[in-house]
Amino acid sequence: MKPEILRSVAGLRERVAAWRRDGLSVGMVPTMGALHAGHLALVAAAQEQNDRVIVTLFVNPAQFGPSEDLASYPRAEASDREKLATLGVDVLFAPPGSEIYPPGFDTKIVVGGPAAGLETDFRPHFFSGVATVVAKLLLAGPPDRAYFGEKDFQQLLVVKQLARDLNIPTEIVGCPTVREPDGLALSSRNAYLSTEERMRAPVLYATLQETARGLRSSGSPSAVLEAARRRIADAGFAIDYLDLRLADNLAPVGEITEIPMRLLVAARLGRTRLIDNIAV
Amino acid sequence: MKPEILRSVAGLRERVAAWRRDGLSVGMVPTMGALHAGHLALVAAAQEQNDRVIVTLFVNPAQFGPSEDLASYPRAEASDREKLATLGVDVLFAPPGSEIYPPGFDTKIVVGGPAAGLETDFRPHFFSGVATVVAKLLLAGPPDRAYFGEKDFQQLLVVKQLARDLNIPTEIVGCPTVREPDGLALSSRNAYLSTEERMRAPVLYATLQETARGLRSSGSPSAVLEAARRRIADAGFAIDYLDLRLADNLAPVGEITEIPMRLLVAARLGRTRLIDNIAV
Repeated sequence: MKPEILRSVAGLRERVAAWRRDGLSVGMVPTMGALHAGHLALVAAAQEQNDRVIVTLFVNPAQFGPSEDLASYPRAEASDREKLATLGVDVLFAPPGSEIYPPGFDTKIVVGGPAAGLETDFRPHFFSGVATVVAKLLLAGPPDRAYFGEKDFQQLLVVKQLARDLNIPTEIVGCPTVREPDGLALSSRNAYLSTEERMRAPVLYATLQETARGLRSSGSPSAVLEAARRRIADAGFAIDYLDLRLADNLAPVGEITEIPMRLLVAARLGRTRLIDNIAV
Repeated sequence: MKPEILRSVAGLRERVAAWRRDGLSVGMVPTMGALHAGHLALVAAAQEQNDRVIVTLFVNPAQFGPSEDLASYPRAEASDREKLATLGVDVLFAPPGSEIYPPGFDTKIVVGGPAAGLETDFRPHFFSGVATVVAKLLLAGPPDRAYFGEKDFQQLLVVKQLARDLNIPTEIVGCPTVREPDGLALSSRNAYLSTEERMRAPVLYATLQETARGLRSSGSPSAVLEAARRRIADAGFAIDYLDLRLADNLAPVGEITEIPMRLLVAARLGRTRLIDNIAV
């Protein structure tokens, strides 16, 4: 019965090798579980482009800081499994911690480029933790393609740089953010929001949309960005950052030109940290 | 005519994929060129255990410190090619620098464990440079097996840890050090030695042998090691380190027991830095 549950790298490698011998292409969707419609859209994209699909489920301790929400991060393997069964996913790779970080494990991957600034200013261990575990998960296949959501836009660019820089033989595919009807980007962390916070949360995306429009028409990006920060703060958020960057590599923007840019925000509402972003 | 010369990752990947489709196993021997009998022994081991063999030739800037010998490191691609032709090596992968470190490249791999101390105390960038380029070369295949000499014993353990920690699907095989008749370990850097230095160089290995015997019979390892350092210094070397470590992970040795240990030395003779090691 699908999905087949695998818990060891050796088992996953054997399964992928068998698929390869049969000439089948393989897609992978790395997740930390607590699957929502955003994850399921990644799965759908993977199924469309590949003969076989692996979803990985691993809450990666290395990408949480000491004061972050590792212990409380939502875990729901049984219901995740049911969702993947409904979609007909072939394999769920859900290794125990000791399979990813066995005794003596002591290697980390540090990506520069798009990892500079933004999330890194607030979560200094984050991208090294992500890069190391993503490299491990990809190399345990490796799949032909792996799918990441644009909701974590900086992470998507970091993973693309990782794969390119290390010759990892997997194409990294970014997929559009899936949103609630009121605009809130889907995130496993939305479960932390109180009813009252949930009602205020959509202001984040509404402000991004308004700001993107304002940036296209205004000659003074810094004033438009300042107004956006004010609106979000007025709604009760504590802002980590709201910034405009080059979409290709997240380098700071000199002056508004025709090249693609990205507006990115991270802000805390109560104990919940939300991130979002939009093309400009 | 063999070896086929490949200069791009894409070309190498295609060649390896074609071999795999034919059910052939693949060995890789990563080198910085200026091939000597030590390299050729690695090639012979690779040929014995695999259907096809790739030798890589890349003088890796990332593993040289700013004051080290990158510019003067011996380069001899034409004669390397002839040697590999004689042995019937299938592919020589000799990429230009821009293929390994293209514009925008910005990722490094940091291995802990056996990388701590010894070489790292004197060449702090060395193992990160080695780990990053070895990961790239392996992942450009990947081969079933890759071959490294025990002459660089700490490097061999670092590469093993790298492959294990990142799930790189390549078995790392260590091969015994090849020596001149007078005991000097073969190294491309031996070419730097003057005639007079070359005559004194064998004292390094002679001292390692004598010290290994002394350690087996003596109750005072620190006195035996101190005598060894004195003998090498008396021969005109400037010692970087001479130390006894656990053979498995290069952790410091508490007391002499039955577990395998390794005696490692690095010392400079004039402008030439030599390293060697021996099982204890």
